[in-house]
Amino acid sequence: MLVVMKAQATPEQVQAVCDHIEQLGFRAHPMPGAQRTAIGVTGNQGEVDRGNIEELSGVAEVIRVSKPYKLASRDVKEEDTIIRFEGTDAQIGGRSLAIVAGPCSIESREQAFAIAEQVAKAGAQFFRGGAYKPRTSPYAFQGLGVEALKIMAEIRDQFGLRIITEAIDNETLELVAEWADVIQIGARNMQNFSLLKHAGRLRKPVLLKRGMSATLDEFLMAAEYIMSEGNYEVILCERGVRTFADHTRNTLDLSIVPAVQRLSHLPILVDPSHGTGKRNKVLPMARAAVAVGADGVLVEVHHQPEKALSDGPQSIYPEQFVTMMNEIEQIAPVVHRTLPRGIHVESTTGVHDGRK
Amino acid sequence: MLVVMKAQATPEQVQAVCDHIEQLGFRAHPMPGAQRTAIGVTGNQGEVDRGNIEELSGVAEVIRVSKPYKLASRDVKEEDTIIRFEGTDAQIGGRSLAIVAGPCSIESREQAFAIAEQVAKAGAQFFRGGAYKPRTSPYAFQGLGVEALKIMAEIRDQFGLRIITEAIDNETLELVAEWADVIQIGARNMQNFSLLKHAGRLRKPVLLKRGMSATLDEFLMAAEYIMSEGNYEVILCERGVRTFADHTRNTLDLSIVPAVQRLSHLPILVDPSHGTGKRNKVLPMARAAVAVGADGVLVEVHHQPEKALSDGPQSIYPEQFVTMMNEIEQIAPVVHRTLPRGIHVESTTGVHDGRK
Amino acid sequence: MLVVMKAQATPEQVQAVCDHIEQLGFRAHPMPGAQRTAIGVTGNQGEVDRGNIEELSGVAEVIRVSKPYKLASRDVKEEDTIIRFEGTDAQIGGRSLAIVAGPCSIESREQAFAIAEQVAKAGAQFFRGGAYKPRTSPYAFQGLGVEALKIMAEIRDQFGLRIITEAIDNETLELVAEWADVIQIGARNMQNFSLLKHAGRLRKPVLLKRGMSATLDEFLMAAEYIMSEGNYEVILCERGVRTFADHTRNTLDLSIVPAVQRLSHLPILVDPSHGTGKRNKVLPMARAAVAVGADGVLVEVHHQPEKALSDGPQSIYPEQFVTMMNEIEQIAPVVHRTLPRGIHVESTTGVHDGRK
Amino acid sequence: MLVVMKAQATPEQVQAVCDHIEQLGFRAHPMPGAQRTAIGVTGNQGEVDRGNIEELSGVAEVIRVSKPYKLASRDVKEEDTIIRFEGTDAQIGGRSLAIVAGPCSIESREQAFAIAEQVAKAGAQFFRGGAYKPRTSPYAFQGLGVEALKIMAEIRDQFGLRIITEAIDNETLELVAEWADVIQIGARNMQNFSLLKHAGRLRKPVLLKRGMSATLDEFLMAAEYIMSEGNYEVILCERGVRTFADHTRNTLDLSIVPAVQRLSHLPILVDPSHGTGKRNKVLPMARAAVAVGADGVLVEVHHQPEKALSDGPQSIYPEQFVTMMNEIEQIAPVVHRTLPRGIHVESTTGVHDGRK
Repeated sequence: MLVVMKAQATPEQVQAVCDHIEQLGFRAHPMPGAQRTAIGVTGNQGEVDRGNIEELSGVAEVIRVSKPYKLASRDVKEEDTIIRFEGTDAQIGGRSLAIVAGPCSIESREQAFAIAEQVAKAGAQFFRGGAYKPRTSPYAFQGLGVEALKIMAEIRDQFGLRIITEAIDNETLELVAEWADVIQIGARNMQNFSLLKHAGRLRKPVLLKRGMSATLDEFLMAAEYIMSEGNYEVILCERGVRTFADHTRNTLDLSIVPAVQRLSHLPILVDPSHGTGKRNKVLPMARAAVAVGADGVLVEVHHQPEKALSDGPQSIYPEQFVTMMNEIEQIAPVVHRTLPRGIHVESTTGVHDGRK
Repeated sequence: MLVVMKAQATPEQVQAVCDHIEQLGFRAHPMPGAQRTAIGVTGNQGEVDRGNIEELSGVAEVIRVSKPYKLASRDVKEEDTIIRFEGTDAQIGGRSLAIVAGPCSIESREQAFAIAEQVAKAGAQFFRGGAYKPRTSPYAFQGLGVEALKIMAEIRDQFGLRIITEAIDNETLELVAEWADVIQIGARNMQNFSLLKHAGRLRKPVLLKRGMSATLDEFLMAAEYIMSEGNYEVILCERGVRTFADHTRNTLDLSIVPAVQRLSHLPILVDPSHGTGKRNKVLPMARAAVAVGADGVLVEVHHQPEKALSDGPQSIYPEQFVTMMNEIEQIAPVVHRTLPRGIHVESTTGVHDGRK
Repeated sequence: MLVVMKAQATPEQVQAVCDHIEQLGFRAHPMPGAQRTAIGVTGNQGEVDRGNIEELSGVAEVIRVSKPYKLASRDVKEEDTIIRFEGTDAQIGGRSLAIVAGPCSIESREQAFAIAEQVAKAGAQFFRGGAYKPRTSPYAFQGLGVEALKIMAEIRDQFGLRIITEAIDNETLELVAEWADVIQIGARNMQNFSLLKHAGRLRKPVLLKRGMSATLDEFLMAAEYIMSEGNYEVILCERGVRTFADHTRNTLDLSIVPAVQRLSHLPILVDPSHGTGKRNKVLPMARAAVAVGADGVLVEVHHQPEKALSDGPQSIYPEQFVTMMNEIEQIAPVVHRTLPRGIHVESTTGVHDGRK
Repeated sequence: MLVVMKAQATPEQVQAVCDHIEQLGFRAHPMPGAQRTAIGVTGNQGEVDRGNIEELSGVAEVIRVSKPYKLASRDVKEEDTIIRFEGTDAQIGGRSLAIVAGPCSIESREQAFAIAEQVAKAGAQFFRGGAYKPRTSPYAFQGLGVEALKIMAEIRDQFGLRIITEAIDNETLELVAEWADVIQIGARNMQNFSLLKHAGRLRKPVLLKRGMSATLDEFLMAAEYIMSEGNYEVILCERGVRTFADHTRNTLDLSIVPAVQRLSHLPILVDPSHGTGKRNKVLPMARAAVAVGADGVLVEVHHQPEKALSDGPQSIYPEQFVTMMNEIEQIAPVVHRTLPRGIHVESTTGVHDGRK
């Protein structure tokens, strides 16, 4: 922490601030400058409330220095985290791109299987579909619940796809952890700390979406909540932030990908479907996400988006998904990645290969 | 809903869009203009996915018209909602201003009582204090839990103050509902729809804080979630939104007060403590909140803010609270309000009057 | 400036950064901490490019400390600046509130006089009206130009009102300086540095509106541009910033008023008309502006807003202006201000008093 | 335009609104709905002030429909605009990517030539360098002015590179137009309408940067200002917008590229240097810009960024520029583009080829 004194602060005021800092159990390092004095503070654990010092006389400003996250930081673990899925060659993080595709909501067994078949055939390794939907309106479709979870488990059996689905509270968390391979925590729950802590006690990977107005620090702190409870398999996901810009539903902030990669060892995906809210912008932004260096993308695919019960307008058609895969595959080598096509499952039930 | 066609759209394209709308079960009203045709859509319940229509050929844009909230709207109930507290003269909404004061967190019985005594003496009718704290860092103080709830219940008995405290998940919701008079749902949980629905099934007033990047519509939709389950006693609270501006922790958006009052019958308070994050801006913004027409303010008060376990820098001193009350009292008549001083409790335990 | 090293930075890296700093002619103050080392930099004039240091190996972050403005700062001048208008009792800054009122655009002599008469009668001391209009569309009404300036000069002669009007480029700046009492620089030109410098060479007060996305520092730096050329009479004006919120045209950021007052000696007004863009929010926000401690307000008034050539929807009626003045007058004493009613001009042409 | 009535509006109120609309010379189309009535308005030229109607009794909301830009719109011109540079094979727009590179500021003949040589060798066709710098602080380096323009003209002669440099007011506009090939108008001047109009009267291409908080509509309207004066050669440039996110200097909004391409025929470049403000994010975002479909990129290159007089931290090294070109070249075919390497000038002075 750094305390900046006013230009006209007296030596007595500087001394009083130093005394205050020392009383709090920290060390004060006064540095007289040409215009004003600054005081460095060391020994704190990132939890000194800067505002109190800001109110002392002669103080102009207090600046926080230490980053409050630890387990999520490269300071603690330098090498990239790679999430692996037992019995398969699928992974999130590392050299191979992770492609997650599927409908916004599971609407029926037929719909889910129709889409799963197509995305598996095009080479996706992960299937996403909502069982519990956080909807802005209480009158909107809220998801099929456990029925949807069971449908997705069947999809895993049938196509080998690993399943990612959202938990919206501590109750659904248990169910999702039971049936799915990755638990998604949505943007609106990024600072639902109770949910984060409960997820941290499980031993299932968690896909954590960035909150609509979360800073990089807050995003990593939310990951830290999960990790502080012992679950280190956290996957970050950029899905657009809220700004004044009105040509897309959210503003997809792709620069957070290299920013996360500089500070943290956790993998980061990009969701261009929620990030733009418009079908005609999903492919361009998916290409950009891979080009910027993301560990993969998460897209909504629907075979009949005009009949979708939620998020139809941002869902791409299966044939667009095929195009997207082809485009991404061409960009991958530029960022030293490969695009696996289809999942290989080592098991008595045989090898699943989306392409066959 | 309104569908705007491109300037060069053909009559066939216009017809195709009308047919599509009618097939969805709605009525289409084409309106040819000088430059382009627009098509009005009626009969929808606010749940047509506009994006699908946006993708039809010849369509330039689709604009949503109907507001999706109903119970929170003045369309359904024109007169202002006033929340009353049985056995007392305290109320939120209506002519008398509601003043909610207390520490960010309950830290100990001594601290809570010391502050409660002072705010009661200065005339507050409501006491706030955190039992469960949603903190950005998992390593920060998380609140005393049930112990804090019990301390606040004692404060109600002793000073007559009505108690407002935050629930952070479905588990704590039950406890808060048992011990407190008003359940607070924090900004980070404004779109925790599971929590909103559970709160809607209770019969206790709910203070709902605006999310950090919530639009007016989303804010009212969150209230609608609670109301749609049968709990109509919702109190809104503006607490600052996230913007690029860095001179305050959040940007307090006072214009939402008249905006809410135009659209909704629900009362709205303002929290200048979280709204600015800086002690020296709390009094100016509290005065402004009353001047703009808010139904009251919610402020953090601490007798030793430099030792507070959370939010010390934005907590005002008890003597500043006295000043604030005096300033507010002078502004109140301009907005046709009165400032009650102290709470009157009708009961065998006698009349509580903060001023005595 | 403060350089924060990474947790795993080696002593050699710390030394290399210190050497680099010293080579740039500054002094380095290394401060080893529990987790990491920070290095204070003194002797700089606020112009070290922090990014270069950020790229040195072992560096985590570089934080700027010194504020770059000087003349606008209370560090240089502690007492409040008060702008006085020779031969009158009008002032901006200090104890008396400055009320600026008038139409968005001067549309005709009749329109301007009709409005001027009413605002003068209600007690305004300053008249505003656009001669040159910065309009988003090239096809919209662009103002009457010099003709409007002459009409406003007549209004000064007739009613004693001091005239404030906007200059939009270096050419119009000369004309505005010749005819008006205060030169307005609009939000869109807040960082038109060429215009700021030219305005700094004049000896007329300048009303500088905050840019739509200007931080406090940038706002004060824009004032510094004017002052650095020798014109110290700068009046700041908050007029709303751009955010995601869509219930008002802009989000009026009232907290900047106490923030400016803490850092700078310059007076600050608030414009609730542009700040909200909606007539029904002007009075509430004008009251709030005075309550928060602003030095005055600037409002658009039109006798026939439904026929106004620009900004009709946000212009209040003359009778609303009277109400506003009465409400403000009641709030003024709470913030130790008075509301002068009408302007007193010492001159052979007699005393102007808006009330007579 | 669409007028939405309140749910409880009476038939008389609906009629009164229709009458008002007709009196203004437009046509009213009432559409009774299940919940409320909406009234379509046709015949307007996009300039009805919606606010006045919003104030009529019974009106809930007024929604603007027609886009106010015409010349910049695909409605007027469907095919993409391509800017060509006489006597060369360079172009902006169309199949070949335009790469603009150079230092933030021209600091000396030596510096400019050193950088120009390297970017030409790596294959750039356009050279950028500031002669007049809009700096936030009046005490910062403001550019070499005409001297810089002359240095860049020499660079054109020597390397064949076409020159892009910024004009900051009407005076420098004339000079820039005389010496350069493309006139840049910076983000801070995007709504300096006087400058836009003057640029519109010239017959030189204009590179228009998006303002820090400009919406898509405002961006296109600024282009319209230039075009409305007869200059149709406008190149748009995304350079980041201002948001709450603090990990980059601005948030680069790549989704505006497909959004512009849907609505307008004008070419659009991306500036990842200003868009991020950090060297280590320039290459990832340049790759993403090409992948999303931009017509080219504009980057700051400096051979000694640690000594640069401005924007050093965001300038890449010449060897990074080479890497960037190689990466972009690999991505180009995915978006049906080619990357020309070096410029070919048809002239008596021979063929310039950056690679030779």
